[in-house]
Amino acid sequence: MTDTHTTPLVRKDGRGVTDLRDVTIERGWSTQAEGSALISFGNTRVLCTASFTNGVPRWMQGKGKGWVTAEYAMLPRATNSRTDRESVKGKIGGRTHEISRLIGRSLRAVVDMKALGENTIVIDCDVLQADGGTRTAAITGAYVAMVDAIEWAREKKFIGQKSQPLIDSVSAVSVGIIDGTPMLDLAYTEDVRAETDMNVVVTGRGLFVEVQGTAEGAPFDRAELNALLDLALGGANDLAEFQQLALSDGE
Amino acid sequence: MTDTHTTPLVRKDGRGVTDLRDVTIERGWSTQAEGSALISFGNTRVLCTASFTNGVPRWMQGKGKGWVTAEYAMLPRATNSRTDRESVKGKIGGRTHEISRLIGRSLRAVVDMKALGENTIVIDCDVLQADGGTRTAAITGAYVAMVDAIEWAREKKFIGQKSQPLIDSVSAVSVGIIDGTPMLDLAYTEDVRAETDMNVVVTGRGLFVEVQGTAEGAPFDRAELNALLDLALGGANDLAEFQQLALSDGE
Amino acid sequence: MTDTHTTPLVRKDGRGVTDLRDVTIERGWSTQAEGSALISFGNTRVLCTASFTNGVPRWMQGKGKGWVTAEYAMLPRATNSRTDRESVKGKIGGRTHEISRLIGRSLRAVVDMKALGENTIVIDCDVLQADGGTRTAAITGAYVAMVDAIEWAREKKFIGQKSQPLIDSVSAVSVGIIDGTPMLDLAYTEDVRAETDMNVVVTGRGLFVEVQGTAEGAPFDRAELNALLDLALGGANDLAEFQQLALSDGE
Amino acid sequence: MTDTHTTPLVRKDGRGVTDLRDVTIERGWSTQAEGSALISFGNTRVLCTASFTNGVPRWMQGKGKGWVTAEYAMLPRATNSRTDRESVKGKIGGRTHEISRLIGRSLRAVVDMKALGENTIVIDCDVLQADGGTRTAAITGAYVAMVDAIEWAREKKFIGQKSQPLIDSVSAVSVGIIDGTPMLDLAYTEDVRAETDMNVVVTGRGLFVEVQGTAEGAPFDRAELNALLDLALGGANDLAEFQQLALSDGE
Amino acid sequence: MTDTHTTPLVRKDGRGVTDLRDVTIERGWSTQAEGSALISFGNTRVLCTASFTNGVPRWMQGKGKGWVTAEYAMLPRATNSRTDRESVKGKIGGRTHEISRLIGRSLRAVVDMKALGENTIVIDCDVLQADGGTRTAAITGAYVAMVDAIEWAREKKFIGQKSQPLIDSVSAVSVGIIDGTPMLDLAYTEDVRAETDMNVVVTGRGLFVEVQGTAEGAPFDRAELNALLDLALGGANDLAEFQQLALSDGE
Amino acid sequence: MTDTHTTPLVRKDGRGVTDLRDVTIERGWSTQAEGSALISFGNTRVLCTASFTNGVPRWMQGKGKGWVTAEYAMLPRATNSRTDRESVKGKIGGRTHEISRLIGRSLRAVVDMKALGENTIVIDCDVLQADGGTRTAAITGAYVAMVDAIEWAREKKFIGQKSQPLIDSVSAVSVGIIDGTPMLDLAYTEDVRAETDMNVVVTGRGLFVEVQGTAEGAPFDRAELNALLDLALGGANDLAEFQQLALSDGE
Repeated sequence: MTDTHTTPLVRKDGRGVTDLRDVTIERGWSTQAEGSALISFGNTRVLCTASFTNGVPRWMQGKGKGWVTAEYAMLPRATNSRTDRESVKGKIGGRTHEISRLIGRSLRAVVDMKALGENTIVIDCDVLQADGGTRTAAITGAYVAMVDAIEWAREKKFIGQKSQPLIDSVSAVSVGIIDGTPMLDLAYTEDVRAETDMNVVVTGRGLFVEVQGTAEGAPFDRAELNALLDLALGGANDLAEFQQLALSDGE
Repeated sequence: MTDTHTTPLVRKDGRGVTDLRDVTIERGWSTQAEGSALISFGNTRVLCTASFTNGVPRWMQGKGKGWVTAEYAMLPRATNSRTDRESVKGKIGGRTHEISRLIGRSLRAVVDMKALGENTIVIDCDVLQADGGTRTAAITGAYVAMVDAIEWAREKKFIGQKSQPLIDSVSAVSVGIIDGTPMLDLAYTEDVRAETDMNVVVTGRGLFVEVQGTAEGAPFDRAELNALLDLALGGANDLAEFQQLALSDGE
Repeated sequence: MTDTHTTPLVRKDGRGVTDLRDVTIERGWSTQAEGSALISFGNTRVLCTASFTNGVPRWMQGKGKGWVTAEYAMLPRATNSRTDRESVKGKIGGRTHEISRLIGRSLRAVVDMKALGENTIVIDCDVLQADGGTRTAAITGAYVAMVDAIEWAREKKFIGQKSQPLIDSVSAVSVGIIDGTPMLDLAYTEDVRAETDMNVVVTGRGLFVEVQGTAEGAPFDRAELNALLDLALGGANDLAEFQQLALSDGE
Repeated sequence: MTDTHTTPLVRKDGRGVTDLRDVTIERGWSTQAEGSALISFGNTRVLCTASFTNGVPRWMQGKGKGWVTAEYAMLPRATNSRTDRESVKGKIGGRTHEISRLIGRSLRAVVDMKALGENTIVIDCDVLQADGGTRTAAITGAYVAMVDAIEWAREKKFIGQKSQPLIDSVSAVSVGIIDGTPMLDLAYTEDVRAETDMNVVVTGRGLFVEVQGTAEGAPFDRAELNALLDLALGGANDLAEFQQLALSDGE
Repeated sequence: MTDTHTTPLVRKDGRGVTDLRDVTIERGWSTQAEGSALISFGNTRVLCTASFTNGVPRWMQGKGKGWVTAEYAMLPRATNSRTDRESVKGKIGGRTHEISRLIGRSLRAVVDMKALGENTIVIDCDVLQADGGTRTAAITGAYVAMVDAIEWAREKKFIGQKSQPLIDSVSAVSVGIIDGTPMLDLAYTEDVRAETDMNVVVTGRGLFVEVQGTAEGAPFDRAELNALLDLALGGANDLAEFQQLALSDGE
Repeated sequence: MTDTHTTPLVRKDGRGVTDLRDVTIERGWSTQAEGSALISFGNTRVLCTASFTNGVPRWMQGKGKGWVTAEYAMLPRATNSRTDRESVKGKIGGRTHEISRLIGRSLRAVVDMKALGENTIVIDCDVLQADGGTRTAAITGAYVAMVDAIEWAREKKFIGQKSQPLIDSVSAVSVGIIDGTPMLDLAYTEDVRAETDMNVVVTGRGLFVEVQGTAEGAPFDRAELNALLDLALGGANDLAEFQQLALSDGE
C-alpha cells in the first residue's frame, strides 16, 4: 500500500520519508484471549491481547456503561541491551505508565461505552521486540484485538446483537524531524536522532484523538508542526487499511 | 496585560475566551532554596523550588554537561475532596509521573547543558491548591525558580561569569474546546467539561516545546487544532511577560 | 504577648531564653479545605488543612463515635538541602510516621468523639519551610484548622447544633537545654546543639497531653526536667492566646 | 521422534501416556538478544532470550568465574483468564520466584563457570501462552538460547577459543499420576487433575539435576515415584534430541 | 531412638551417616497461640505457632472446606552473620516464599479439609537459630502445633466431636551426598559442602508428600537418588516417633 | 528484689502498684550472635541479639566513631490474635519504626562512640510473646546483649583493651495511671485501661534518657507526672540490679 508513494529522500533502511516500515498483523495469535494480534512495524513486534469480562470496576457500577483500559510493558530483552524488569524493581516507571494511559485513552475514543454495557475490556500490549514506535504499533494492534473481543462478546450474547460499541477505528503513527526533514514512522536509530518527535493517534475517519509533539532538541515552529501532521495523517490512513485487511481475513 | 483582548464570549468567572486567569508570581518565596516562586493561575497555586547542586548523576559524569530534572506532586487537600498521599500508598501514580517528566523536558529545552557544566538543578513543583492548569502553572513558575538558581550559582562561581545556560524562557498554558468554543487557560470546572484538552509549552520566542492535545470526548479536526494553537500562543506570550516582570523585580 | 517576659540571656536571633519566635497564623489559607491554617513559628511554615467527611473507617462503624487522624509530611526543599520524596522512595520514614501519630493523638485528646458523631476529620500538616519545631507548629496550627472544620460541619448540620466536640484547645512547643541553659522554642541551629530536646503538648487549661523528652547528649536529671516543663507551660500559654486571636478573627 | 513409543492409553489430545506434546523450537527468534529461542510444548509457548554481558555481580568479582541467572514471568493473558501483572502489584509472587530459581540452577548445572570467565548470562523466559509445563519448556528452550549466547561470545572473543563452558546439555519435563496412571508432559487440564505432579530436570547424559515431586492429592509411594522417574528420563531423552536438531540448523 | 542404628562413618559432630541430630520439641511454648512448638534439630531452633480462626478466605467461602497455610521467616541474627530483615527491604525473597509454600503444601497433605469445616489454620514458623535443615524442622514442628490447634478447636466446638481433620502425621528431613557419601539431616557446614541436597516430606505411614532433590555440584544418578530416599525414609520414621512422644505428653 | 516494697493496692496478678512483674534474663541464649539475651517481663518475652561488625555506614566513615542501631519487630502470633507480617505487607508500620528508633537512641545514650571506634553494633529485638511493655523489656535486654558483644569485640581485639565504650547501664520501664492510681510495669490488660501511659528510659546512675508520656484518656497534671516519674525511677533501679545479676553470671 505504502509503496506507491514517491519519496525524494531515501533512509538507511531504503524507505522514503513518507513510507511506513513493513507492517504485518497476525490476528488471533493467542488461543487464550478473546481477541489478539501480533503486530510488527519493521522489527518492532508487539503482542496485543484483549480480555473481555462481564462487570465494571466498583466505582463505575450501575451507570450502564462499560470500561476499556490498557497496560503496556516491554520484555527485558526487547531492547538492544537488557533492562531490569519492573516487577523485580517493584515499581512501574513513568514511561510505562504514560504509554499505558495513552493506549487506553486512544481506544476509549472509538468506543461507545453505553453500547458496550457494563462490561470491561482490558488490552495488554507486550513489546516482544523494540525498534522504535512501540506505542504506535501497540495502539494499532490493540484496535484489532479489541474488535475481535467485541465480536466474541456479541457471539456470547454479552453484548446485544444490535449494539455497536465501535464508533470508528483507530491507529497511531510516529513522525519526527531528522536533520531538518520530517519523516514518517521512525525506527529506533532515527528516533534517537530526531530533533522533534511526535506521536499522532488518528481515527479511521481522519480525526485526531491525540497529538503529542516534543522538541527533543531545538523547539519547532508552526510550519514544522504542520508538515508533521500532514505526514501522520497519510501514515494513519495506510495503517487503517492494514487493519481492515487483517480484520477481513476469515470472514 | 490580558485585559486589552476583546473577547466575545463571557465565562462563568467573567473572563473572555482568550483571557488568562489572574496570574501572580511571588519570586523568592522560600528562604531555603536557591531559587523559588509561588505562582498562582487563579485559585491554582504551585510552590516551585529549584535546588542547585554540584555534580551530575553517575551515568552523566565526565561529559562536561549538566542536568535538569523535575518532580511534581499535589498536597492531599489541594483538591476539592482529599486524595490519598502517594507516599502512603507507596507508589507514584501515572499522572504524577507524566507531569514530572513533562516539566523536566520543558525546562531542559531552554537550557544549554554545556554552559551549565557538571551541575544539577532539581525543580520541585508542589501544588498547594488545585483549580485546573496545575502543570502549566508549574512549568511557568519553575522557569522563574530556575533562573534564580542559575543566578545564585553564578554568584557562587559554580557557573562561569560568561556562561549563559539559559537559551530562552519557557511557559505553558492549557487550551480546550467547550461546547464547540476554543478557550484559554481552563479552570477545573471548565476542564472537566472540555471535549478537547490541550497543554502547550512555548518558549519566549514563540516556538513549541510540547504540544499535547487529547480528545476527551469527540475527536477533533485540523481546524480545531489550529484554533487551539492560536489561542495557546497568545496566552504564552502574556505569561512570558509576567515572568519577565517577576524577574525584573529587585534588580 | 511574649515580649513582657524578662530573659537574662540573649540568643542568636535576639530572643531571650523564654521567648517564642514570631508566631503568625493565616486562618482559612485554603479555599478547598473545610478548615485550614498556614502557621509560622519564625521561618518554620506549615500548611494545615482539615478535611471533614461523613462516616468513619470500617472498624469503627456503628459505635456512634467519630475519628480524627493526621498526616505530616515535608516538602523536599523545605530544608536547607533537598531530601528525597517519600513517595519516590516508596516508603514513609520512621520520623514521618512518628510525628503523624503524635499530631493525631494530640488532637484526639481534645475532641469528644461521641459529640463528633460518626464523622472523620483528617488533618494534613505539610511543612513548606523547616527551621526547627515543625511538629509543634503543626499541632498548634492543626488545632485552628480543626476548629474551623467543626464549625463548617455544624453549619452543614453534620454535627448537631448543641453538640460540642471540642473539650479544650491544644498547642505544642519545643524546649531544650543548650550549653546547660533551658530554652523555649528551638530554631534548627539551636536544636542540633541541644543536649536535651523535649516536645510538650499542652491543653488550653494547662494539662499535659504528651511529654517527649530525649537526651541527645548527656542524660538529664529531675531538676532539668522540671525546668524544661516550666518553660514549656509558659510557651504553651502564649500559643493558646495566639490561637484564640486567630480564631476570633472574622467573628 | 516420540511417535515410535507404543502407549496403551490414549489421552484427550490423542497422545499416549509416554508421548510428549508437539515440540517446536524457533532458534534465533529475537534479533536483539545474543541467543534466543521461542519454544512450544503444544500450546505452551515460551520466549527465551539469553543476554551476555562482560563482568559479574560485585560479590563474585575477582574469582575468575562467571555467573548464569534466570528470570521467569508470564504475560497477563498467557492464561485462560487474565492475571494481574506483578509489576502493577509491585511484588513478585512465590511461584514466579520459585521457577526463576529453578531455571537458574538447572542451567548452572551444565556450565563450567571457570571456562565462562568473568562474564554473566541472564536468561529471560517469558511465557507468551500457558497450557501446562511452562517451567519445563522454559528450561528446555533456555538451554538453546544459552548455547547461542556462548557461541556469540566466543566469536566476539569474550570467551577463549579453546574454552568450553558447556559441560552437558539440559532439558526438563513434567510427569504426573492421573487416575492412577503415570503420564508424561502434562497439559494444563491434566495438570489440575493430577494426584502427583513432578518436574524433572535431566542432562543430555541422563543424570538428574532436579527432581521435584509433589503430592497434590494423596501421597505417593516408592513404586509410583519410580514409574514417574522412568517416564521422565524417556521424555528428557526425546527433548535432548529436539535441542540438538534445533542447534544443528544453520551449521 | 536413632542411636540403635549402626553407622560406619563418623561426622564432625560425632554422628553416623544415618543419625539425626538431637531432636527436642517443646510443645505449648507459646501462651498465646492455639497450638505451638519450639523444635530443635541440633542448633537449629524454630518456633512454630498455629493460629485457628473461624472462616476461610473469600475465594473459598461456601464450599464447606477449610484452609491451612504457612509462613516461614528467619530472625535477622538466626544465622552466623546478620541478614537484613525482609520487612525493612520491603519484599520477601524467593527462598522465603518457596519454603512457606512447601510447609503449607506439606501440612495440607495430611488434613481432610471437609472435616476441618470452614475454618483456617495459619502456621507461622520463625527460625530463631539456623544451622541447616530449618525447613525440615519447621514442617516437623508445625505438625505438632497444628495438632494442638485442632484439639483446641474441638474443645471450643469449632470442629465437630466426631470430625477428624487429621488423616496422617507428617515430618520432613534433609539428606545429601558429601564426598560421595549419602548422609541424613545435614548441619549447615555439611549442607554447603553437599554435592546433592534433598528435602523429603514423608507421612507417618511412610508415603511421600514432597521430594525435592537438587544437584548443587555434579548431577546425580538413579542409584544415588535411591540411596538418599532410603536414608530419608529412615529419618522420617524416627521423627514421627519424636512427634508422637511430644504429643503424648500431658495426656 | 522487688518483693521488699510494700504496696497498698493489689493488682489482678497479685502485684502491688510499685512491683515489677517477674523478670528473667537468659544471657547468651543465641549461639550465633556476639551477644544475646532472652528477657521476660512476666509473659512478655523478647529475644535480643547484638551483632558486632567492623566498619560503620558510609556517611560516618573517617570520623573515628562507632555506631549503634536497633530494630524491633514482633512475631505474627506474639499477640493474642495473629497480626500480618510486615514483610508480607511490604512496609513497616509506624509503631515498629517508633520503637526501633527509641531502642537505638536509648542504647547510644550509654555508649562512648569514640571508644567504640569505627565499629557497628546492630541490636535486634524480636518479641516472641507480647503482654505489655515489649519496648521496655527490649531496651533492658538489649543492654545485656550489647555488653556481651562489646566484651566479645575486646577479646577479638576489635576494641582496645583499655577502651571502655560503656559509660553507664540503661534500662526502661512503663508506668501508667489506672483508675486514678499510678502503677509500675503495666501488663497488656492494664495498658489498655490506662488513662496515661509513660515509658521511661533511665541509666544505672538514675538519669533520664527518654521520658515519653501520653494521655490516652484525660490529659494529666504536673502532680500525676511527678508520681509516675517516682515510680519509674524505682522500677528502673530494680531492673539495673537484674541486669547486673545476669551479667555477673559466668564470671
